[in-house]
Amino acid sequence: MVDIATRVWNHKWKIDPIVRSLIDTDFYKLLMCQSVFRNHPDTQVTFSLINRSKSIRLADLIDEGELREQLDHIRSLSLTRGESTWLRGNTFYGKRQMFTPAFMEWFENLRLPPYHLEKHDGQYELTFEGNWPEVMLWEIPALAVLMELRGRAALRDMGRFELQVLYARAMTKLWEKVEKLRPIDNLRLADFGTRRRHSFLWQDWCVQAMTEGLGERFAGTSNCLIAKNRDMEAIGTNAHELPMVYAALADSDAALRQAPYDVLADWHEEHEGNLRIILPDTYGTKGFLDGAPDWLAGWTGIRIDSGDPATGAENAINWWKSRGEDPREKLVIFSDGLDVDKIIELQKQFAGRVRVSFGWGTMLTNDFKGLTQNEALVPFSLVCKAVSAEGRPTVKLSDNPNKAMGPEDEIARYKRVFGVGEQVGMEVVV
Amino acid sequence: MVDIATRVWNHKWKIDPIVRSLIDTDFYKLLMCQSVFRNHPDTQVTFSLINRSKSIRLADLIDEGELREQLDHIRSLSLTRGESTWLRGNTFYGKRQMFTPAFMEWFENLRLPPYHLEKHDGQYELTFEGNWPEVMLWEIPALAVLMELRGRAALRDMGRFELQVLYARAMTKLWEKVEKLRPIDNLRLADFGTRRRHSFLWQDWCVQAMTEGLGERFAGTSNCLIAKNRDMEAIGTNAHELPMVYAALADSDAALRQAPYDVLADWHEEHEGNLRIILPDTYGTKGFLDGAPDWLAGWTGIRIDSGDPATGAENAINWWKSRGEDPREKLVIFSDGLDVDKIIELQKQFAGRVRVSFGWGTMLTNDFKGLTQNEALVPFSLVCKAVSAEGRPTVKLSDNPNKAMGPEDEIARYKRVFGVGEQVGMEVVV
Repeated sequence: MVDIATRVWNHKWKIDPIVRSLIDTDFYKLLMCQSVFRNHPDTQVTFSLINRSKSIRLADLIDEGELREQLDHIRSLSLTRGESTWLRGNTFYGKRQMFTPAFMEWFENLRLPPYHLEKHDGQYELTFEGNWPEVMLWEIPALAVLMELRGRAALRDMGRFELQVLYARAMTKLWEKVEKLRPIDNLRLADFGTRRRHSFLWQDWCVQAMTEGLGERFAGTSNCLIAKNRDMEAIGTNAHELPMVYAALADSDAALRQAPYDVLADWHEEHEGNLRIILPDTYGTKGFLDGAPDWLAGWTGIRIDSGDPATGAENAINWWKSRGEDPREKLVIFSDGLDVDKIIELQKQFAGRVRVSFGWGTMLTNDFKGLTQNEALVPFSLVCKAVSAEGRPTVKLSDNPNKAMGPEDEIARYKRVFGVGEQVGMEVVV
Repeated sequence: MVDIATRVWNHKWKIDPIVRSLIDTDFYKLLMCQSVFRNHPDTQVTFSLINRSKSIRLADLIDEGELREQLDHIRSLSLTRGESTWLRGNTFYGKRQMFTPAFMEWFENLRLPPYHLEKHDGQYELTFEGNWPEVMLWEIPALAVLMELRGRAALRDMGRFELQVLYARAMTKLWEKVEKLRPIDNLRLADFGTRRRHSFLWQDWCVQAMTEGLGERFAGTSNCLIAKNRDMEAIGTNAHELPMVYAALADSDAALRQAPYDVLADWHEEHEGNLRIILPDTYGTKGFLDGAPDWLAGWTGIRIDSGDPATGAENAINWWKSRGEDPREKLVIFSDGLDVDKIIELQKQFAGRVRVSFGWGTMLTNDFKGLTQNEALVPFSLVCKAVSAEGRPTVKLSDNPNKAMGPEDEIARYKRVFGVGEQVGMEVVV
């Protein structure tokens, strides 16, 4: 077993790059990448890092040289033979050859494109421009690098045993969550914590601990490298990135209104079963479901990623009923701001009424709150998003106005087009 | 850094012998051994294991084959060249050549003598007979083997991550003690926890963590192997074994009454300074101090190892005053049943009035209480004592009647000879 504290202490990770593989990324990124590679290979997209927690002044905490070193290392990575074999030969969601030979050939030759890095007002401005299928693969490693460098900065001056006790406390904290979750019948949860993890080694530890502690209640991880190394299921479907770029490419309000359904129409052609999961909140869940074509009601489930999760699940249940579907055969995946108490509460409320699943992120892989004296590891909200496509800004509304993104006038236009009324704001912690 | 949990999990310690060196023992054992080697090399003594916690049925918990294997391994040990060099060349208590060439030559050729092992009523009867200087060296390794085998039995069925979380919790618990002790000015404490440690690796971890966490407040360890490996002070002076055997050898009541002073007269010839520490409680502290010759009042300090520690320290202060000594120049070493709150309380009560020091044992190196669900690692009271010398039973009274040892009629005789009246019983936890 890896002694995380010692690896942290030894030269402060100099021997451990933060991202050590192109598949040290979320599975849904690869699924979406294949879809984009097929449908929009030449679309020019810009991704940009956005720190929603302005009080965490990343450019003051993290040395620019170290950041460049880590990003340059990522640019040097290419798919290894073993990784390629795993992607080509493994069964994902019960399906062989999930990734086509054409996609795999492209992926095997891929190096990530250049990045642009500047400092501004205590923050890093980190952007990636280029062909959508290439640029999109920066999102997860860029986030993981920033998160982990911030953690390293916070731990730099700690003693060797102080560090080991820090990790001891974090392990104890996670295990207490495991012990709370173990008695819950029919629980099904997966690790969605790659992007805002404390570190790769820590995520890997968390995943293994969950495997031992929760057995079949733990369904797998979104992280492809860990899934491969630990012989687990790789979990994930699709994300806001698809409707955001499709929407930005729309040439009229009518096309804009249609864009989120176009995304899922493409997806419908490519995937079936448990990969047919609706992410309805990009421009407001209510309008999306009201206007959805009937074939979408036949999809397997809905992922609830913003707004009040219980309300979201109730709305989904009512929507399925209104379309003549039996909610007990449908899957609701909760993935927003989860921690153990919320998981237990939602499981109790919805188990039996729908199939329930949880994608547990930051509070699984980066819950160091209360473990350092100065709270230098307190969670914060960092994202890396597609901010423009073919020169047009993207917009995200979601069911929480505090998560809205994009230029103000475009947000107003999208709200009008998608008929989004009053929204309830909820604090965004991570 | 050693990953203790993984070493525990890997084949359940098959690769790690419990005692890995003849100097994996308390420093005072070696000091006493040299004194015995000089003064009583041929005295025939029997040491015997005594489990004062009858409810812990060691013979039911520990496999006899495993126990024999560990004891046999100890019999295979001899001093390595590096260990010999360290003992010959190192400075102990500011003195070079603490160990004489004659003693070192004997020690370099030593193998521990045979043991006798039987099972009786759920307990092991483990005895060692032979020349005092040889037999006495079994005490610490025998205790360490029984303690650690009992721990292994308790952990045998735990999962790999469950074990790591157990050690994470133990690390956190120890570190909380460190954080409580760190603000205490002029604190001075040492590890006395070899005999009832959870394991060698764990003691080694605790010592290093205390070193980092407490700095100069942590004076060293009684364990010679750890002191050598970690470049620390080896700490310790003498123990009840000396007066108990001297007393058993006494041919009359008058000689018996004199025996505890004879021990210290021999010691006075051999040692000076901080090694001149009186252990006054073997047959009652009050009578011992009242009857002590004046040269003993000139010694550096007193170790308080039974009875109420604050009362013992007050009595020592009053005794020094009555002999015209300045208590502020004297050292009081507390070594009985200490944990962090008691250490802080005693430090506050006596700092400035005497020089204060702590020999912290079981609750430093084996505090796993509350860390396993079935309390399989709860502390218990195991000792290994000289029970007879030249065929005569030994007796210990101490300042706590619950710690008394020996045949009833002999206890009565000793109480009469030493004028021990009513004593206050205190619970013996470890």
